[in-house]
Amino acid sequence: MKDGREVAIVGLGLMGGSLARALTAAGYRVIGVDRPPVLRRARAARAIVQGTPRVEEVAGAPVIVLSAPPRTNLSLLRRLAHRIGPRTVVTDLGSVKSPICALAKDLGLSRFVGGHPMAGSERQGFRASTADLFRGHPWILTPDGCAPTALLAVRRLARAVGARPHAMRPDEHDRAIAFLSHVPQLVAWAIDGAARGDRVTARYRRLAGPGFRDMTRLARSPRRLWREILIENRREVVRALAVLARALQRPV
Amino acid sequence: MKDGREVAIVGLGLMGGSLARALTAAGYRVIGVDRPPVLRRARAARAIVQGTPRVEEVAGAPVIVLSAPPRTNLSLLRRLAHRIGPRTVVTDLGSVKSPICALAKDLGLSRFVGGHPMAGSERQGFRASTADLFRGHPWILTPDGCAPTALLAVRRLARAVGARPHAMRPDEHDRAIAFLSHVPQLVAWAIDGAARGDRVTARYRRLAGPGFRDMTRLARSPRRLWREILIENRREVVRALAVLARALQRPV
Repeated sequence: MKDGREVAIVGLGLMGGSLARALTAAGYRVIGVDRPPVLRRARAARAIVQGTPRVEEVAGAPVIVLSAPPRTNLSLLRRLAHRIGPRTVVTDLGSVKSPICALAKDLGLSRFVGGHPMAGSERQGFRASTADLFRGHPWILTPDGCAPTALLAVRRLARAVGARPHAMRPDEHDRAIAFLSHVPQLVAWAIDGAARGDRVTARYRRLAGPGFRDMTRLARSPRRLWREILIENRREVVRALAVLARALQRPV
Repeated sequence: MKDGREVAIVGLGLMGGSLARALTAAGYRVIGVDRPPVLRRARAARAIVQGTPRVEEVAGAPVIVLSAPPRTNLSLLRRLAHRIGPRTVVTDLGSVKSPICALAKDLGLSRFVGGHPMAGSERQGFRASTADLFRGHPWILTPDGCAPTALLAVRRLARAVGARPHAMRPDEHDRAIAFLSHVPQLVAWAIDGAARGDRVTARYRRLAGPGFRDMTRLARSPRRLWREILIENRREVVRALAVLARALQRPV
């Protein structure tokens, strides 16, 4: 087994679990880090070969993927920073990139590469994970001055699961994703909430057509996770919301 | 051929064309009213048995379905009012119900039943029509004091194409549809427009995930038609937009 074919995934939810399944299917040896019941489920699904609830135990892995919620990823990176080997590549799957890239720089981690696969769903947890979640979708990478070999390793990982890697700056990512993902998420909740809040509409909601269903599908997304995401990217989200408000006032 | 099995459809676009295909498939004899090139297309597709560009020629049909844009439906109803037979049932497929129901009352048409099938797509024209557009979807009817036999006839029509008829008041329809369809349409344009208007985001738009695509699908809807719809239901749309704006400001 070549070194580069071993990957530790920290957090086996929808994203991490799907990556574990996809990498295992692609011939990688995947070690999972999560709570014991999740590890049991992941092992039973043959998504991982080995698991541990302690992140310190995978600090020596050639590649570590952080796929916990954004704030947890930040503290995981802090805990791992002084333990990882000189050749260990670290990446993450979070949907806000500036804070974690800045932290990696502060910690002197030249082999950290920010990542954000543009795939997912409103569901959550390992049970919602699928091996083909990333296939055909873009996978944004924010190298931000990291070692070229580290970028290569993460590109290879993205390609191994059928995704299309695209490099960009962390600040550009956070700007664009506010428009392309964070504000649409807020709007899905607002449309859903407005329809529920109106007494007449609430009664006839089940009559809604396919357009309404498409536009409120994201309203089933996990609020706790999203609260963290929106707070992390608040500056860009507030800005994009103001642009949206102006767009709503323009004549059709 | 029984009388009730003959239907005239005025306007063979996405909605009217789909209804023509579906009713023909269900054994109805469908007469189309539209411009000659559209009639040729509909006849070639065997969606209609006969066609005419002049609405007056179908005034004697047992059932007339108005499926032009909303303002045109209003003027068609005025033109037909003094010509239709005493047993002719008239219905429409428009997405705003109070104005046309009020007009029918003014014109003394006790056999007019407002209708709004909760199906459709962002596409338009006869070319986008399909025989199964209505299958499994609700079809709202706003009888508003019409003759019970007229309501029965339109219910039968909706059921014949696989839809589920639901009766409600025109004002309740317009209130609920503002939240369930008209505001989501405006928001789809606003999200799409905001993303196009931001320089950085516009560059990375093709990287957007499935959530963004779902939430902007409706942005491809025909603006001219929608302008009419939104103006007709402006009171409820403005109200629902204000509710949405408040919902957007609530913490997640």
